[in-house]
Amino acid sequence: MTRACTDGSDTFDLNHHGDADAAPGLIDLAVNVRAGMPPQWLRRRLSAALDDVAAYPDARAATEAISARHGRSLDEVLPTAGGAEAFTLIARGLRPGVEVRRPVVVHPQFTEPEVALTAAGHAVSRTVLSSDDGFTFDATSVPDDADLVVIGNPTNPTSVLHPAATIEPLARPGRVLVVDEAFMDAVPGETESLAGRCDVPGLVVLRSLTKTWGLAGIRAGYLLGPAELVERFRSVQPPWSVSSLAVEAMRACMERAALDQAERLAVVDEPVRRWVAERLRQLGGAVVPHARAPFLLVRFPRGDELRRSLRDAGWAVRRGDTFPGLGPDWMRIAVRDEPTMSRFLDQLSRHFTPLRPAS
Amino acid sequence: MTRACTDGSDTFDLNHHGDADAAPGLIDLAVNVRAGMPPQWLRRRLSAALDDVAAYPDARAATEAISARHGRSLDEVLPTAGGAEAFTLIARGLRPGVEVRRPVVVHPQFTEPEVALTAAGHAVSRTVLSSDDGFTFDATSVPDDADLVVIGNPTNPTSVLHPAATIEPLARPGRVLVVDEAFMDAVPGETESLAGRCDVPGLVVLRSLTKTWGLAGIRAGYLLGPAELVERFRSVQPPWSVSSLAVEAMRACMERAALDQAERLAVVDEPVRRWVAERLRQLGGAVVPHARAPFLLVRFPRGDELRRSLRDAGWAVRRGDTFPGLGPDWMRIAVRDEPTMSRFLDQLSRHFTPLRPAS
Repeated sequence: MTRACTDGSDTFDLNHHGDADAAPGLIDLAVNVRAGMPPQWLRRRLSAALDDVAAYPDARAATEAISARHGRSLDEVLPTAGGAEAFTLIARGLRPGVEVRRPVVVHPQFTEPEVALTAAGHAVSRTVLSSDDGFTFDATSVPDDADLVVIGNPTNPTSVLHPAATIEPLARPGRVLVVDEAFMDAVPGETESLAGRCDVPGLVVLRSLTKTWGLAGIRAGYLLGPAELVERFRSVQPPWSVSSLAVEAMRACMERAALDQAERLAVVDEPVRRWVAERLRQLGGAVVPHARAPFLLVRFPRGDELRRSLRDAGWAVRRGDTFPGLGPDWMRIAVRDEPTMSRFLDQLSRHFTPLRPAS
Repeated sequence: MTRACTDGSDTFDLNHHGDADAAPGLIDLAVNVRAGMPPQWLRRRLSAALDDVAAYPDARAATEAISARHGRSLDEVLPTAGGAEAFTLIARGLRPGVEVRRPVVVHPQFTEPEVALTAAGHAVSRTVLSSDDGFTFDATSVPDDADLVVIGNPTNPTSVLHPAATIEPLARPGRVLVVDEAFMDAVPGETESLAGRCDVPGLVVLRSLTKTWGLAGIRAGYLLGPAELVERFRSVQPPWSVSSLAVEAMRACMERAALDQAERLAVVDEPVRRWVAERLRQLGGAVVPHARAPFLLVRFPRGDELRRSLRDAGWAVRRGDTFPGLGPDWMRIAVRDEPTMSRFLDQLSRHFTPLRPAS
């Protein structure tokens, strides 16, 4: 059951992000970045690129690498300074009341697209998916007259991977369908990705290098879409927006060896996530099922209190109450390596069992 | 004599920048970046910052460093992804017909402010300074009803440093005065800078780290202005827009040792520039007088032809004809180290003297 489409007037702090939940000294399961540092080979590539930073950045090499990786033509590719810039370009490039009259954001999801659309003067409506259905989705969830639809796949913060066959029917002539695939490279085989689909009308796919490669600080992402939309977004992008290091990161991470490494990481992560989900359920957590992204969304009775006591114990998780469709008892937990998660689960279990006296 | 204010309808390729004049294999005097590489100490700082790029960038440390350097309060400082982003934020933050009705750009200058304003829907007027006056300027040059004025100091491409006492009278309540000081750190003592002036109404000063420090690829700049304007610009800036490396560059380049180094570089460059200007004049070039930035603007008879034959000989200079107020016989020449400039002048002089037979 999808909740009725709202006018977005509910009050949520959409400007809150996981980095605000983390704090020095806390073990950070709040921010959705998988790696604590880029891998050594990538760090070397970036360090070498520092020799060339006196020159203005030239994004063409990145465009070519992305084009080859996804089988899209060069004019269907736009490198961006992270996903956040992509949302701004979409919001600015499609003018309110001109190209877009009825923008709809499917929640709960990353709040930045709604923020960017609102800042650009769009009157955003929300389609809010329900936890009763495990935050799943069908094409009737979105109003027929929506001419811009934004959805995440797999979705942050629910971790739900929607089947491509569920999302594709949302596309139609006269509508721009934005699919945020920032976490898709964490899904083995990227089975539900629409990134390579140049045949779907109005389809814009966003990707990010941030999460798998530990590059949040570099600002590296890109956008794939029909040439005429890409040109529109490019026209509102400040010149040299994508830094030299982001260009080098995009080149490096599109190479075969990097793609293979991402796939191996994705495969390795799956059993860890399943194990964490199972343990959370045993502790009484309502874990959103079918999680496929490198994080889990879970609701605990008195979850808000639990989150704060985890914080007192040195663990940061992402609060849920700033996401439309969630509330204070929800939390998003980044799934990191097994030893870290084991320690986290030990800590968590202490909140549900009587404390043993210190030995 | 200032030319009449125009409506900006003249056709100039405002999207042309010096990096398009440079090309692999050419010695680049087209791009206005002084250093061929960041100095070793800065490169080490940036390389160390690569360890932390998995975290989302936090611009607060940069804001604090900039605030301390210029004696401005924290809420008067906005780090930006280079100067280009600053122009976009100004153009988007001040809405056409709402906060700004009559924006005026003083030309010839860096074309990006006009491009950004136009892209955001502003109807830009131009005040075009004249070579007859050496592209100097007085307060009557700008229409009285201009409520946004953009001027560069020292100006790219003319290299003219306007006295602060000439620019300050342009400020008034109800007008935003944007002074692009991207090259001010190349002027010994920064004598005409308005960066520290929080008492001038509506004054917004833009600065860049790109030119002195060889950081064009990193995208590092900032904006100083009244808190209410800074807040407005911040509200349209995408989150995490300034990368971790740009933050580190800003911290590093605001330190005392870096400021002292910039000052020494500025002092050392002056006699080289004067010498190059003198030699250009001896060869028949009309060099814009009182040049104080790390480049020279010069007009030669049949300068367009000269520029192309320099290119054939392996030297790139910046074409002048894309700047409103200039024409094809103008060229902008970056002043680099003395040996490079000596070779350039030798090359140039060959175009004015009969070729000697090859020995």
